[in-house]
Amino acid sequence: MNQTAIFLEAEGTSNKAGCLYLSECETVMKEVAIGIDLGGTNLKGVVMTRDGAGRHRTHAPSEADKGGKRILQNVIDLAGQLMDKAGKNARICGIGIGTPGFVGPDGTVLGGAENLPGWQGTQILAPLRKRFGVRAAAANDVTVAALAEARFGAGRSVRNIVCLALGTGIGGGVVIDGQLYKGTHGMAGEIGHIVVETDGVQCNCGMKGCVEQYASGTGIANLARRLCAGAIHETPLVKTVKKDPSAVNAKTVYQYVRKRDAVALEVHETACEMLARACGAVANVLSPDRIVLGGGVMKEGRLISDEVARRFPNHCWDAIARHTAIVPAELGENAGVLGAAALVFEEFAH
Amino acid sequence: MNQTAIFLEAEGTSNKAGCLYLSECETVMKEVAIGIDLGGTNLKGVVMTRDGAGRHRTHAPSEADKGGKRILQNVIDLAGQLMDKAGKNARICGIGIGTPGFVGPDGTVLGGAENLPGWQGTQILAPLRKRFGVRAAAANDVTVAALAEARFGAGRSVRNIVCLALGTGIGGGVVIDGQLYKGTHGMAGEIGHIVVETDGVQCNCGMKGCVEQYASGTGIANLARRLCAGAIHETPLVKTVKKDPSAVNAKTVYQYVRKRDAVALEVHETACEMLARACGAVANVLSPDRIVLGGGVMKEGRLISDEVARRFPNHCWDAIARHTAIVPAELGENAGVLGAAALVFEEFAH
Repeated sequence: MNQTAIFLEAEGTSNKAGCLYLSECETVMKEVAIGIDLGGTNLKGVVMTRDGAGRHRTHAPSEADKGGKRILQNVIDLAGQLMDKAGKNARICGIGIGTPGFVGPDGTVLGGAENLPGWQGTQILAPLRKRFGVRAAAANDVTVAALAEARFGAGRSVRNIVCLALGTGIGGGVVIDGQLYKGTHGMAGEIGHIVVETDGVQCNCGMKGCVEQYASGTGIANLARRLCAGAIHETPLVKTVKKDPSAVNAKTVYQYVRKRDAVALEVHETACEMLARACGAVANVLSPDRIVLGGGVMKEGRLISDEVARRFPNHCWDAIARHTAIVPAELGENAGVLGAAALVFEEFAH
Repeated sequence: MNQTAIFLEAEGTSNKAGCLYLSECETVMKEVAIGIDLGGTNLKGVVMTRDGAGRHRTHAPSEADKGGKRILQNVIDLAGQLMDKAGKNARICGIGIGTPGFVGPDGTVLGGAENLPGWQGTQILAPLRKRFGVRAAAANDVTVAALAEARFGAGRSVRNIVCLALGTGIGGGVVIDGQLYKGTHGMAGEIGHIVVETDGVQCNCGMKGCVEQYASGTGIANLARRLCAGAIHETPLVKTVKKDPSAVNAKTVYQYVRKRDAVALEVHETACEMLARACGAVANVLSPDRIVLGGGVMKEGRLISDEVARRFPNHCWDAIARHTAIVPAELGENAGVLGAAALVFEEFAH
């Protein structure tokens, strides 16, 4: 049993202690999936019906600093609690996991999860199957978030979408004909490493000019520091950044964008220009109905997506640009956990 | 009846007059598809079984200079002759058309077929269905070529491939989980317009630095003219090009590449570098098993694909690059017509 406290949140009602009443739901639930979204700080969990309704959410610390084994134990413990919460009347279709990094077909974390030390190489699925006797599936967290947006969010009325998650880096997910596209070894959607500026800013992947160097949270903060260091006029943003360069982040920048600070606007426009270039490359390959922008940076919403949409046709074949909309994500921070559960229905309930 | 001569080619045997004996085949043929590949000069036709075997090919002038109606009439006439050749014992699954440009879901040519004046706006499928009473499907010629490479050529043992056709321009086709991916309004795969050089060479699409400005047949010839005009040393290629700049084409350039002409090698390396950048962007989005290089320019074969493969890891996320092979196409000029027939089985014979 996990030592850490479990916090339960109902979609609407909870008792004084924050605990969830599931009894009503249990009597009508038929087929549900368990979804768990693994982050650097928290695990999020959900019990979800196929249509994305009847959700019951919970979360617990992931304790990522304590290594791969502890993370896995926490995932198993949370899954167990969600199984209990689903109730005896529910048929559990399976357990789905969204995780940083990419996951091989056998359920091993193959790489790309650098912020979770010791997680690479972990076999996620076999222990879940063994412990609970149900089917289990896992995929990249942004990939499953894309599936959730496709099913329940910004892409629910169309067939083909590509999602970009603007967070610490930039992740991506591709949904084709309503189905998740994982690519060889689960690695599709590395959109953050599309090069948008020849000989541009050095990326830690070894290449130069990757879009995440300009438009991720980290990229926007670095861009602000560079532009402020070289600014001729001492705008309020420049003063703030010079005072404490390490404290600036994307949120700071956008506080000043809303005040029409000239340097902040230059950061914003550069970030959106680079995103538009990446979207142009993606659209030229896939001609999707929509490109959905999500992730923490997209708390700024249409301020970003509208500017990207305005610039996008300059970087995409004309006929494709006319049919591809750039829109903000709709599910916010819940996309990952809903997608993890949706993955179960996608893989096991055809 | 089409006035133009029909040339028949058997896969192995033909009589002295070049005519095809179909009688043997007719007795064993069960389900076949008719495929027609529409080019600026010729129509190619095929009667093909599902496994790509038992092929019987034919061709006829497309008379593209005589307008959309004449092209369509020639397509119908050729289809009629192929129906006859298939024989009475064959069950015709349908007729498939590969055409320049992109085709809407209803079978109308929506655009991108600039080298066939009057072809845009043509309804291709309804007249074929009406005339022959069979199902018909149409898609972009490079897209169907990709399907053929996936089924019978360079991608036959893997699930996900992207094809680039290096011709007058650069077209692309995407096959996902063995199925053709067309994108919204049939427009996926405009890989020729991926930008590979910020503020690069002006493209006729309105953007700058599109890969087809460097690595299509036209792009390579233009690149050779630019580099020769600015060359310090009078290499044999420089002399040839200066004598008659308009006569140079990709074939000329590669004649000199094989002789290790320094300027020709620079053209070759630049073209391959730009292709590697485009392949990097494609792979970062889709993480395909293989990127297949085809089209007229790829008559140079591994000379090009090996150089692109060597440079590709510099432009792609490391883990993806390790699992994506860059390979030459295997079906040559037949890819389009075989793909047109394969499209029929894909759409109608599940």
